[in-house]
Amino acid sequence: MKIFEKVADVREFVTNAKRQGKVIGFVPTMGALHEGHLTLMREAKKQCDVVIVSIFVNPTQFGPNEDYAAYPRTWQQDLELCQSVGVDAVLHPDKDEMYPEDWGTWVEVEGLTGVLCGRSRPTHFRGVTTVVTKLFNIVQPDKAFFGQKDAQQVVVLMKMVRDLNMPLEIVVVPIVRDEDGLAKSSRNGYLTAEQRKAALVLRRALNRADVLARQGESNVDFIQSAVRACIELEPLADIDYVEAYTFPGLQPVTELQQKVLIAVAAKFGTTRLIDNIIIEPAGR
Amino acid sequence: MKIFEKVADVREFVTNAKRQGKVIGFVPTMGALHEGHLTLMREAKKQCDVVIVSIFVNPTQFGPNEDYAAYPRTWQQDLELCQSVGVDAVLHPDKDEMYPEDWGTWVEVEGLTGVLCGRSRPTHFRGVTTVVTKLFNIVQPDKAFFGQKDAQQVVVLMKMVRDLNMPLEIVVVPIVRDEDGLAKSSRNGYLTAEQRKAALVLRRALNRADVLARQGESNVDFIQSAVRACIELEPLADIDYVEAYTFPGLQPVTELQQKVLIAVAAKFGTTRLIDNIIIEPAGR
Repeated sequence: MKIFEKVADVREFVTNAKRQGKVIGFVPTMGALHEGHLTLMREAKKQCDVVIVSIFVNPTQFGPNEDYAAYPRTWQQDLELCQSVGVDAVLHPDKDEMYPEDWGTWVEVEGLTGVLCGRSRPTHFRGVTTVVTKLFNIVQPDKAFFGQKDAQQVVVLMKMVRDLNMPLEIVVVPIVRDEDGLAKSSRNGYLTAEQRKAALVLRRALNRADVLARQGESNVDFIQSAVRACIELEPLADIDYVEAYTFPGLQPVTELQQKVLIAVAAKFGTTRLIDNIIIEPAGR
Repeated sequence: MKIFEKVADVREFVTNAKRQGKVIGFVPTMGALHEGHLTLMREAKKQCDVVIVSIFVNPTQFGPNEDYAAYPRTWQQDLELCQSVGVDAVLHPDKDEMYPEDWGTWVEVEGLTGVLCGRSRPTHFRGVTTVVTKLFNIVQPDKAFFGQKDAQQVVVLMKMVRDLNMPLEIVVVPIVRDEDGLAKSSRNGYLTAEQRKAALVLRRALNRADVLARQGESNVDFIQSAVRACIELEPLADIDYVEAYTFPGLQPVTELQQKVLIAVAAKFGTTRLIDNIIIEPAGR
């Protein structure tokens, strides 16, 4: 497995692979790799000839009071995990390699970024779309793999790729969960045992939405309220949002007539977790 | 010569060319082609195996009171000119192909776009950087060719390419002038004979800056004032700006110690023209 710290070096690797006609798969990550990331990498291995993983804790997607400095960095373990699933190359640039001193060009998606996580993290998606554009230009993948867990991120990136005519396909991979149902996240490690147990309420609440939809409930406000009520029963959960939007359009919705994303975010102590489910009208 | 109206079709052409290892040159234009554009295409032919020209009057780089609707469109003549210099393919998408109804993703360069033309055309460069990003993603050129006449555009695009790690080189080609010295522009056709004669003052004024620099004048304010005074002698010239910045950094400058861009914009009737010169300290 190759390890690159410089953009120029990974570019050379990519150019050679492309010259040989290889299909390039790309999994951008911030490290602290878990089963969710590994699932993306395995899917990339299935669909592509060469798999490149980036490990870069991207400062521009963290707000001033967020956990950039504290974000878990587990470099040695990450490398071993990449190797274990057969990744071909890891790109691990430092901050200055990605953002030199006089850097300043942003990619911004309108319309989808002011809801859900974009409301409490107003500059987050601008940081994500910008760094992903940079990484796409560096790695030039044919396919890039993202997890459904960051549902809004997926929708925003798909719009960016379409709007800017980027020559690649975004592949979305379902949420990976621990046995107890908690969605895999690099931030789960912050949780105390008690908080972790409490956090299971998110999955329970989203399952409730699914059950209601399957039973024929089509009032989205009602479903949303039921999810909120379920989470409110957990005293350790501090709700950031419980929202419902059409998927993938992220438009407001009242009747369940198409795919609807129910997305939740809540804090357990200082740790903010997100989870989501996509529900459909009964009988589909 | 191939003519493409659909993004998918030009993509297929590009993919095939790349598969054969061809070096792709790209000249983005808004049509109304003149000798300046042809010079870019000839340079592209020299340096590349396959030359693609886009002809697209880009709505997002025009302000609400600017000349988008009136901008000259000379499609048949443009095609003949492209053919005459051996262009391999022309991309000529319509507005909906480039900007579908729910489109909304922007590329913005900070820091260089609030001066010169960016001051009187506040949304202009955002439109340029966005459409050029789209075209780069569609055409995937190895080299893209731009004229020095739009000096600020060149600087902004070079910063964009560097900041977003776009996998291509920007080649800058010197200003092409008519025999009388007027810089070639698609907007020159708007001028009356009298205005055209008056517009020659821009080149005369910029030459004055060059002469002063060669004579050892190093006070940039003084040089700038001399240029302005020269243009003010022409009653038909309505000055928008006469400005001086370091090149290519576009930073304020008082002493001529490095390359300095002297850039002017003025209206003749309703037609806004730009021109520029890069001066250097005497003895370099």
